[in-house]
Amino acid sequence: MTEPEKIEYKPITVRDALTEMKDLSEIMIDLAYSAALFHNRELAEEVLELEERVDYLAYMLNMNLMLAARDAEDAEALVGISAVASATNEVSDAAADIASLVLQDIGIHPIVREAFEKMEERLARAEVMPSSVLSAKKLGELDLASRIGVDVIAIRRGKRWLIDPDEDEPLLSRDIVFARGAPLGVERLRKLACGVTNELE
Amino acid sequence: MTEPEKIEYKPITVRDALTEMKDLSEIMIDLAYSAALFHNRELAEEVLELEERVDYLAYMLNMNLMLAARDAEDAEALVGISAVASATNEVSDAAADIASLVLQDIGIHPIVREAFEKMEERLARAEVMPSSVLSAKKLGELDLASRIGVDVIAIRRGKRWLIDPDEDEPLLSRDIVFARGAPLGVERLRKLACGVTNELE
Repeated sequence: MTEPEKIEYKPITVRDALTEMKDLSEIMIDLAYSAALFHNRELAEEVLELEERVDYLAYMLNMNLMLAARDAEDAEALVGISAVASATNEVSDAAADIASLVLQDIGIHPIVREAFEKMEERLARAEVMPSSVLSAKKLGELDLASRIGVDVIAIRRGKRWLIDPDEDEPLLSRDIVFARGAPLGVERLRKLACGVTNELE
Repeated sequence: MTEPEKIEYKPITVRDALTEMKDLSEIMIDLAYSAALFHNRELAEEVLELEERVDYLAYMLNMNLMLAARDAEDAEALVGISAVASATNEVSDAAADIASLVLQDIGIHPIVREAFEKMEERLARAEVMPSSVLSAKKLGELDLASRIGVDVIAIRRGKRWLIDPDEDEPLLSRDIVFARGAPLGVERLRKLACGVTNELE
């Protein structure tokens, strides 16, 4: 175990923390199921990293709520926020539990794989290589949804996560792209990202 | 509190139970967030009903696993399934926690609503009225995805849930349809379901 980082107070609004917790927890579930389905350690590790982020956000959110509550009335209004945040945190924990199973190499039983295989839509994780045709292009310009039938749900740029990125967001070299789509589309995205193919049509 | 129903042993395979638990838990999260966003008690009640179903499935699944394990080696292979099932159950519990908040009328704080409002895609719950143009038509024939831009993710028919229904599945009068889509499409689906409009183009 590594030493837990000391959590410093950084200003983040309660709303931003909650929005991010909700978005991350949903993506984590997808990633965790995909990690289990494909016994993919990289995906499982992303989930555990995201769980740390969600824990941090939960801590900051609760700290902010306590600072905000001046009297019993305030507290009553705010306690519902804390409850919703704690539910998103539970979702994130559940995703992390699945990811841990993958990393423990317990071995995903064929039944688990069969149960998850029905997912028609697949999730891809792909690193954008410098030589990729995707590199330095905006998502709106790439229009991957209509061209190859995949939907970019998140981008990880180093330690930073962009959830539900805008049309104006460019894909940069070394970005990790998370996308959903049919198996064929997902396969094409992987090839485009690593530069094996340049054909976008 | 109502008396819990006595759970009888009914044959359901481990794989089917796990598949259903996974599918239901994912839909429950969507429903729970939407229930919180729109302070919608009906959606919240659906979530709690689904939680009972997931609990039942978890019980059946674990019972089956115990019956299947003959020796330590079996047990080791099967314990991973139990762990994944328990994680899907945690997701379902988290969704139920959010739904309970909505039903307790604690009042959803505006910050929660703002945090969830960014969801570009909306979830609709609509009952198909006998006079609706949707009634007695197959999903493939209706082709709601390309016509009005919504995706039917589940149908509840009485007590029965159809998750990710096939193209061949008809919508029947009094079915409860759950669909995802942009706000405009979702609004159109509601109108089509209750028979206010018949225009499908």
